[in-house]
Amino acid sequence: MNAIGVKDGAGEAELLDIPRPDPEAGEALVRTLRVGVDGTDQEVIAGSHGGSPEGEDYLILGHEAVGVVEDPNGTELEAGDVVVPTVRRPPNGPNRYFENDEPDMAPDGQYHERGIVGAHGFMAEYFTSPESALVSVPTALAEYGFLVEPISITEKAIEHAEASRSAFAWDPESALVLGNGSLGLLTLAMFEQRFERTYCLGRRERPDPTIDIIESLGSTYVNSNNTPVPEIPETYEAPDLIYEATGYARHPFESIEALAPNGVLAALGVPGDWTFEVDGGALHRELVLHNKAIVGSVNSNVRQFEAAVDSLASLSASFIDSLVTGIYDLDEFEGAFVNDDTTIKNAVQFSTYEKR
Amino acid sequence: MNAIGVKDGAGEAELLDIPRPDPEAGEALVRTLRVGVDGTDQEVIAGSHGGSPEGEDYLILGHEAVGVVEDPNGTELEAGDVVVPTVRRPPNGPNRYFENDEPDMAPDGQYHERGIVGAHGFMAEYFTSPESALVSVPTALAEYGFLVEPISITEKAIEHAEASRSAFAWDPESALVLGNGSLGLLTLAMFEQRFERTYCLGRRERPDPTIDIIESLGSTYVNSNNTPVPEIPETYEAPDLIYEATGYARHPFESIEALAPNGVLAALGVPGDWTFEVDGGALHRELVLHNKAIVGSVNSNVRQFEAAVDSLASLSASFIDSLVTGIYDLDEFEGAFVNDDTTIKNAVQFSTYEKR
Repeated sequence: MNAIGVKDGAGEAELLDIPRPDPEAGEALVRTLRVGVDGTDQEVIAGSHGGSPEGEDYLILGHEAVGVVEDPNGTELEAGDVVVPTVRRPPNGPNRYFENDEPDMAPDGQYHERGIVGAHGFMAEYFTSPESALVSVPTALAEYGFLVEPISITEKAIEHAEASRSAFAWDPESALVLGNGSLGLLTLAMFEQRFERTYCLGRRERPDPTIDIIESLGSTYVNSNNTPVPEIPETYEAPDLIYEATGYARHPFESIEALAPNGVLAALGVPGDWTFEVDGGALHRELVLHNKAIVGSVNSNVRQFEAAVDSLASLSASFIDSLVTGIYDLDEFEGAFVNDDTTIKNAVQFSTYEKR
Repeated sequence: MNAIGVKDGAGEAELLDIPRPDPEAGEALVRTLRVGVDGTDQEVIAGSHGGSPEGEDYLILGHEAVGVVEDPNGTELEAGDVVVPTVRRPPNGPNRYFENDEPDMAPDGQYHERGIVGAHGFMAEYFTSPESALVSVPTALAEYGFLVEPISITEKAIEHAEASRSAFAWDPESALVLGNGSLGLLTLAMFEQRFERTYCLGRRERPDPTIDIIESLGSTYVNSNNTPVPEIPETYEAPDLIYEATGYARHPFESIEALAPNGVLAALGVPGDWTFEVDGGALHRELVLHNKAIVGSVNSNVRQFEAAVDSLASLSASFIDSLVTGIYDLDEFEGAFVNDDTTIKNAVQFSTYEKR
């Protein structure tokens, strides 16, 4: 069958011909509908993140998938069910994080991530997955179900951020999303439903499609060239919640000062090493005297995927239409990996959903 | 009546003669038993923190008090009740933080702190306090009730730290206290009841009374001269919880790396400005990929004072005896403010408790 993968060191995605997988006991066979592309895929292709399964010299890409159960193979799923797979799998037998249904909390070395590190992804005509790692999706969401995985990332970050503020009466009114990529915009749409005032920071100048989306959501675009994070409190307001999705290493430090008292930063970016000066004394003092919090958050679990299905259903069709830039068939898959200023969210289409 | 205060700019505590206060409606009159001394008092005396009430040129010191109700003045308290006062008071009429019974979450400018900033403290033969800011203490704890306030600081920090880890199955086994001052040692004694393994970092060499206390608690002393924070994971283990009570501005940054995956840092110190280099990229990445959290925590509320009363009751008499270095009568109060390597925790005694 056809698959999209990257050979070690090749630096680009290519079409591969691999055997169709056979589901093992407890696994279902899934016919792939669509698989989204994100920044992590770009890093995996470039070789700066992740890696191929042990003993293999290529990695099938893709971790944002939606598909249709082709063969339930004795599981409680039914043929025709629309499902989204979670990403992490136990690396060498189960460990306590997987046993707790919290693989997202597993430390380095205690997980593989399908399509990212140690395990093949979902960019193939078919994939297999344990039933416990498949989340059912209403058929009405079959087309855009590949957005469940990125939304689940934010569900987890919100859970952890809110938990960190649960020891007192926290009544947040404003939220700032750092980053206007597809994850930032999805998060902003979710925040619009939760906060009275939202802001989204990017470095694009007008005209720009992401700025149009931000404003059509009713949010305020913050151009970081004019208003960097440290100036946001004075220019706009000090946000109760900051969601960092840039991977820009200065942002967490700048956010400590920019947050409102009792506010929380959810950090999601994964920068490389970068040494710089900070006023560590002032940051430390500000954290303490204003009861601020920082939570780092990575990956997501089944519960958060399920919450993401509900969130996806609540987003407007017009927002999703504007977010999804291109759906590419297999014969033009390269287009899905192009990342320019007109691209927000692309996906590769492996097959189409037809209601039975 | 006698009181201990500091005149603006004087740089030292002195005995003052001030009028005995009359309780207003809703307030009780309290006869002071003992008032503890901590590092904040030293900073207030030195003039580096806090300030006198508006329009006055001196501040009565003391925020760690225990006393006996002298005149209930129509409140539901009874004469003879042993009480501990909380520290924060509304500055200019109530605000939402006080209305929520969470004055500890009030930002700068929305509180006075008795004995610290904007309001006189408890180092006087009598003080008045609203009933709602007096926490009852069993008579058996009358002598050491001045430890309730510092313990409540840790109750709050633990609450916030645990809350930040409540979105997943957190099962911490080890905790590290940074700082072997009286707050660090009180916290360590509390942690001994909660964690399987505890560590306490200081910079003292043996023989030292704090090291004796640490070891008699069953904890491990970490000499920062030999094992600075970054080396703790390799030398001992990566702790699940780090409690920072040093005010050393590098500690929060070093703690991000030293924490175990999914761990949390509770930061309590209040350093001055200090600019230094950090590998901000590595810290940001570590927070995210290992789901770490930082919570800043300051002050405490009535609920946390009540929890502190229970915690104080659970600490062994031998631990408390070893922690409390000196109880100074009014005519030798200067001794309570001496801060040398033999001092752990001093208090000034204004009167003695006699059971009715």
